[in-house]
Amino acid sequence: MPETATDPGTSRIRSWWGWGYADAHPDDAECAALGALLPGTLARPLPIPRVADLPIGRPRVMPPPALAHLVTDDPAVRAAHAMGKAYRDVIRALRGRPGRIPDLVARPADGQGVADLLDWAGENGVAVIPFGGGSSVVGGVEYRGDAHRAVLSLDLTSMDRVLEIDADSRAARIQAGALGPVLEAQLRPHGLTLRHFPQSFEFSTLGGWLATRAGGHYATVHTHIDDFVQSLRVVTPAGAGMSWRLPASGAGPSPDRLFLGSEGALGVITEAWMRLQERPRHKASTSVAFADFDQALDAVRAIAQSDLAPANCRLLDAGEAALSGASYDGSVVLVLGFESATAPVDGRLATALDLARAHGGRGEVPTADRDASADTAVSAWRSAFLRMPYLRDGLARVGAVVETFETAATWDKVPALIDAVRTEVGAAALKATGHAATVNCRLTHVYPDGAAPYFTVAVAGRPGAEVEIWDDIKAVANDVLHRHRATVTHHHAVGRDHRPGYDRQRPEPFALALRAAKDALDPHRILNPGVLLD
Amino acid sequence: MPETATDPGTSRIRSWWGWGYADAHPDDAECAALGALLPGTLARPLPIPRVADLPIGRPRVMPPPALAHLVTDDPAVRAAHAMGKAYRDVIRALRGRPGRIPDLVARPADGQGVADLLDWAGENGVAVIPFGGGSSVVGGVEYRGDAHRAVLSLDLTSMDRVLEIDADSRAARIQAGALGPVLEAQLRPHGLTLRHFPQSFEFSTLGGWLATRAGGHYATVHTHIDDFVQSLRVVTPAGAGMSWRLPASGAGPSPDRLFLGSEGALGVITEAWMRLQERPRHKASTSVAFADFDQALDAVRAIAQSDLAPANCRLLDAGEAALSGASYDGSVVLVLGFESATAPVDGRLATALDLARAHGGRGEVPTADRDASADTAVSAWRSAFLRMPYLRDGLARVGAVVETFETAATWDKVPALIDAVRTEVGAAALKATGHAATVNCRLTHVYPDGAAPYFTVAVAGRPGAEVEIWDDIKAVANDVLHRHRATVTHHHAVGRDHRPGYDRQRPEPFALALRAAKDALDPHRILNPGVLLD
Repeated sequence: MPETATDPGTSRIRSWWGWGYADAHPDDAECAALGALLPGTLARPLPIPRVADLPIGRPRVMPPPALAHLVTDDPAVRAAHAMGKAYRDVIRALRGRPGRIPDLVARPADGQGVADLLDWAGENGVAVIPFGGGSSVVGGVEYRGDAHRAVLSLDLTSMDRVLEIDADSRAARIQAGALGPVLEAQLRPHGLTLRHFPQSFEFSTLGGWLATRAGGHYATVHTHIDDFVQSLRVVTPAGAGMSWRLPASGAGPSPDRLFLGSEGALGVITEAWMRLQERPRHKASTSVAFADFDQALDAVRAIAQSDLAPANCRLLDAGEAALSGASYDGSVVLVLGFESATAPVDGRLATALDLARAHGGRGEVPTADRDASADTAVSAWRSAFLRMPYLRDGLARVGAVVETFETAATWDKVPALIDAVRTEVGAAALKATGHAATVNCRLTHVYPDGAAPYFTVAVAGRPGAEVEIWDDIKAVANDVLHRHRATVTHHHAVGRDHRPGYDRQRPEPFALALRAAKDALDPHRILNPGVLLD
Repeated sequence: MPETATDPGTSRIRSWWGWGYADAHPDDAECAALGALLPGTLARPLPIPRVADLPIGRPRVMPPPALAHLVTDDPAVRAAHAMGKAYRDVIRALRGRPGRIPDLVARPADGQGVADLLDWAGENGVAVIPFGGGSSVVGGVEYRGDAHRAVLSLDLTSMDRVLEIDADSRAARIQAGALGPVLEAQLRPHGLTLRHFPQSFEFSTLGGWLATRAGGHYATVHTHIDDFVQSLRVVTPAGAGMSWRLPASGAGPSPDRLFLGSEGALGVITEAWMRLQERPRHKASTSVAFADFDQALDAVRAIAQSDLAPANCRLLDAGEAALSGASYDGSVVLVLGFESATAPVDGRLATALDLARAHGGRGEVPTADRDASADTAVSAWRSAFLRMPYLRDGLARVGAVVETFETAATWDKVPALIDAVRTEVGAAALKATGHAATVNCRLTHVYPDGAAPYFTVAVAGRPGAEVEIWDDIKAVANDVLHRHRATVTHHHAVGRDHRPGYDRQRPEPFALALRAAKDALDPHRILNPGVLLD
């Protein structure tokens, strides 16, 4: 019985229980070293969990022979499809209490296979959980409840081809199961890029990005996957269809926007025509230090309200700056970057720096030969950014409760919101654990009318009670967001974990319309049950 | 009995039958001069139609006393709410065959008034046609059929206040009935602007823009009203609700995007939080001439695929350039403009000009003191742009068939699409009238992945047969668009006139969802019947 599955895009082995590649996990010594930073954590890391120890039974259903070749009941594959990659998922695996293991995992080769599987599932009361890279951190790919006869995880990653490229219009038709590196490798020979780089880039798919309205790495303008969509193909239990490829259209409500963010509850996105970009030829970046967080917020707001459109405009509070190695002197750090395929960006960087200095920032225009990788704070932050989820899992192994959550709010609300989260979430963590918690904040995306604060919480847990502790902390966090009218999620999606906040936030006319759409498209209620709607 | 109604925003009198202000209509002499340009038109203009000549009966219903103060049965007001302002509408009025006159016109003062009227209408089988500025050119505000007991035109223009301004987030809460100049006048003292300037700016409302997904005057980036929306308040027969004000959110499908473009068929948009901008401080514009249209298309594509983001990038073919006075020598003219509130734009203009010259364009960077108004081609085009709909009505008075239609397509399809429209629509017009037609083209909006061509057709009609002639020509136009997979409308909306094309274009899963949403939100099917759905 294989303990693991190799990644479809590389020869490296993907972890079934934790983030990313198994060979990138911190080892026991590194885990212990991480634990030493958080008082109260375990001296000896929890062992890496084994599939063999899981109570995986025989599947309760099997599809007819015509579909049998599309599914597997391999326990390791099923275990790897049981949950996403939230802290909650990782600690449950470490504690031997994973979510419900699906009965079967299907890997259809095309849209017809998806349609056939939906037909079979609908006739047999089988819940279908669409699954891309499995990087959900909101319980988006996990079955909960027992209203279905069985559970099928519908893994799209065998559908990973760039099918067509239209160089004139800089667009490509791409299958939804392509992981980030897999699709970029196919676009590169054409000099084009989708240029969508979420933190989960290596471990998430185009279809996952579309279904969850993913936010990319860039701070402004071209960063939300929504804006790159020309056309979607969607397979639903009630039929399939593809919208027309259009640069823009005023013909009724956008058909694509109803499926963007539908999280597998209305249909399965099987392919999309996506807008591409040329690779940038001009880059410039630097970092700016501030003594005061609120002054830095004003600087960021001024830059966001200009038309400079920085590719990176990430504000790190003092704790976040220290954690990522961008600064250790208590400064707040603003990482600023510009990119263009058209013209040099030095002028834009200089204007942005002027705005930052006008609000108390200390930073210099880099000299001509000094690019992103030469700026210590910038490059330290970049490496830390990709390494962060692995370190979270290392901390989980020493019994820490460590997780992130993110939101967005208009500028008038941002300062008080961030203060309230720090105070109230810190207090909730202390109350739940008896330990002082770290609550750090960064801004990941900025807009003329607001910003997206991203919070990291880390605190020693009580052995065996980590899930309950996190749920208590998260409930307080969601309550703070709700009181400040900040969205329950800016780019992590709703899944199952954000349902209470989402239900309170969603306006009632839209809730009525969404329920009606669900009834029409998924009459047997088999698609990702519990996501978005009951 | 008043023949007319004064404009709520000015003291000028609005035409009940034609575009805009009554005092701006071409007089008989000007109509005759226009007619001289089109062989076969009438020597003597049709008279301006009079409300007194219309067969306007008593309303078939009256609301209860509690709502009576919200409605009027004044014949002139009812006549002015019978149709939009398409050529089809104008010629029907001129020929004494207007669309169905509504029984009543309501002007509620607030959202509660809207809700009360919807309740009453639902209980009494009264169709409700939401009405903003009435500038629809697609039959969007006209009742057709006879499935309802009576027809109520729901005029929102008494709800025209900017209710709240958040200067930090550069946003305002604005009632949906505010006409363009009315809302801009309220924003100006704050140094802010919505900066949404469709050709109908003076005669259309925020709610109309939102319900039809209006496109502004600008060629790129900040031009679609969709992108300015922070939050919508919608009143439906099934209840009301307001989305949260958020700069961005990944919480499920966008609740606002379902109502943007819903054309009054799902609910009535009563107010919105809108993103605002600072007034631009830096401007530069010029015009570039091309000998060849296809080369000019390549130039425009290069500029659209750069990150230069011109505010204006309007390509006029030789006929359109001559018509607007931008050029009389057979050149194709590209009107290029840049604006910024942040930094000078001369560099961007120079780079765009380089791109245009690389594709055969002839133009110069204007000197520093030479702005938009000093460039003859640019200013000629601007004046003509605002005057155009009045001239159309003048031509209608001499029996011409003259109308526009617009679309959008990806770049790979644009050249063949424009060729096909010129050829096939020209042939259809000749066949229908026996006269050679003018078919001009301009690009109104450009995108990295495509463009929005806008066509003007003008030909002498046959007296009394103008509507049928236009319907024949338009059917051919829609057929060409459909075969080239170009949208049936880029920014004029669907209304009733574009239904056949829209129905063919809309993907089936979205059609199912939209029908279900309609059933849930408008169970008595009173809202703008026939728009988007049967």
